[in-house]
Amino acid sequence: MKPKIAISIGDLNGIGIEIALRTHEKISQYCNPIYCISNKMLKRAANELKLEIPQDFITTKVKGEHEIKAGVVTRKAGKYSFDSFMEAITLADKGEVDAVCTLPINKESWSKADIKYKGHTEVLRDYFGKNAIMMLGCKKMFVGLFTEHIPLRKVAKKVNEEDLTQFLIDFYKNVKAKNIGVLGLNPHASDNGVLGEEEVQIFKAIKNANKILEKDIFKGPLVPDTAFSPMSRKSYTYFVAMYHDQGLAPLKALYFDQSINVSLNLPIIRTSVDHGTAFNIAYKNQKLNTKSYINAIKEAVSLLNNK
Amino acid sequence: MKPKIAISIGDLNGIGIEIALRTHEKISQYCNPIYCISNKMLKRAANELKLEIPQDFITTKVKGEHEIKAGVVTRKAGKYSFDSFMEAITLADKGEVDAVCTLPINKESWSKADIKYKGHTEVLRDYFGKNAIMMLGCKKMFVGLFTEHIPLRKVAKKVNEEDLTQFLIDFYKNVKAKNIGVLGLNPHASDNGVLGEEEVQIFKAIKNANKILEKDIFKGPLVPDTAFSPMSRKSYTYFVAMYHDQGLAPLKALYFDQSINVSLNLPIIRTSVDHGTAFNIAYKNQKLNTKSYINAIKEAVSLLNNK
Repeated sequence: MKPKIAISIGDLNGIGIEIALRTHEKISQYCNPIYCISNKMLKRAANELKLEIPQDFITTKVKGEHEIKAGVVTRKAGKYSFDSFMEAITLADKGEVDAVCTLPINKESWSKADIKYKGHTEVLRDYFGKNAIMMLGCKKMFVGLFTEHIPLRKVAKKVNEEDLTQFLIDFYKNVKAKNIGVLGLNPHASDNGVLGEEEVQIFKAIKNANKILEKDIFKGPLVPDTAFSPMSRKSYTYFVAMYHDQGLAPLKALYFDQSINVSLNLPIIRTSVDHGTAFNIAYKNQKLNTKSYINAIKEAVSLLNNK
Repeated sequence: MKPKIAISIGDLNGIGIEIALRTHEKISQYCNPIYCISNKMLKRAANELKLEIPQDFITTKVKGEHEIKAGVVTRKAGKYSFDSFMEAITLADKGEVDAVCTLPINKESWSKADIKYKGHTEVLRDYFGKNAIMMLGCKKMFVGLFTEHIPLRKVAKKVNEEDLTQFLIDFYKNVKAKNIGVLGLNPHASDNGVLGEEEVQIFKAIKNANKILEKDIFKGPLVPDTAFSPMSRKSYTYFVAMYHDQGLAPLKALYFDQSINVSLNLPIIRTSVDHGTAFNIAYKNQKLNTKSYINAIKEAVSLLNNK
């Protein structure tokens, strides 16, 4: 039996709905998708895109409606994308679907809609009361993020032995990799304290985690700018980055099209595309790259099979 | 006539001297190298490496001597590498050589030797009283660094309209590229202020610089984690990064072996290898990658020819 996957539809002013319509046949090979969008909004978007709605395109109710404003940040689209995501989580939590896959939301639209979260992962963390971990990547390289959607100036203060130790243990329990590279925070991993002091905390957290796990899993702190060099990537497929761009800029430089986003450490399985709403090309019938979405669906199925 | 290039020899406990000895014949095709090392220290290192000193290996006096301690941070090696660099700069400043190429120093050794600088670029800045710009890369992609060797926690405070405007203008005058991508500071370039506010300063600096140059050279602030994606790299060969690892982690993920370091905006030409002292493989007769050093020599020659 193919698993049921709830698809949260993302910001309807962006490219998500077009991706969903164009890939429906393809992803139906791997799962039975249930799209979290009302029929009314689906028709509106399909009409705007001049695309047919596939016969077996199963939807669920999501309240509210709004005009499609291609490529525009609006409060209503922000609210709708949030409600679509909440519907998907609820279906998974009730066991009515086996996993959730999310299409891109716009953080500014969420902010306009007074949604207090910065992204999907934070919602999941709050909903399940668990320290959800954001991991991005593809088969060749995965990066777990110790901090995510916070301003860069706030990153250094977040790096402490206790929280990082817990993060590393949780990360290991989810990915079960034998060898995980943990990045330093500062240039040259501080050159032994010359360029910052946070590496001391990172070093201690690595030591603690390895001791608790009784295995020499975590290595580091790695020098951030060489951690993703070809030689270093021979040693590590899994990395832990201290902040968003530290891990994601190298990942996207190398594997932009293929990467996906996975939420670890939760009672439900959730995967996502690793790109934004692409407002600049929304509703313009441009060629969309659907690899990330298709990989996200495949990874959800694969995580279900490994369960 | 081949140009004269002064080679500062780097930390003698690292791999620099082995690179110099092994590539001497090769680089002598492009330039006449003058090595800033005393004959005494040269013999000591060559002896340790069990390598012959080439007949035409021209050296200059650098005071002091120390034991070679392969792979060890020592005060004396730090001091010696600094003095070697100062000798190279002095030769260039006096016009006795045409350019300087530097082998890697160890920042911790410099710190032990009470040298107040964090790296070569800062010395150059102080020596010439000019705002030297550190740029790394290779023909496919160059990154100029707005901030360099400072702890991550200090980066955000450095980003301001005035300094960045000046930096952009200086950078343009040196590289003369038609299209330069300027990175934001925060995740998603702050998503219009949701994740930080420094992008406002960056936006203004870009606007100012383009106005002063009367050309639409600088674009941005680019979203840092997608700026180096394959699609974005089709638009830009030159980037300006707000901090060290923001630019260098993607660069080294993509072009580790080939990259070099160039100091712009100075009265002299200076290029350098883009790797460290590699203490772990020093004096072990391991296979060394000399591409970065050879490219650094070639780039110095090329910059001289374009002058």
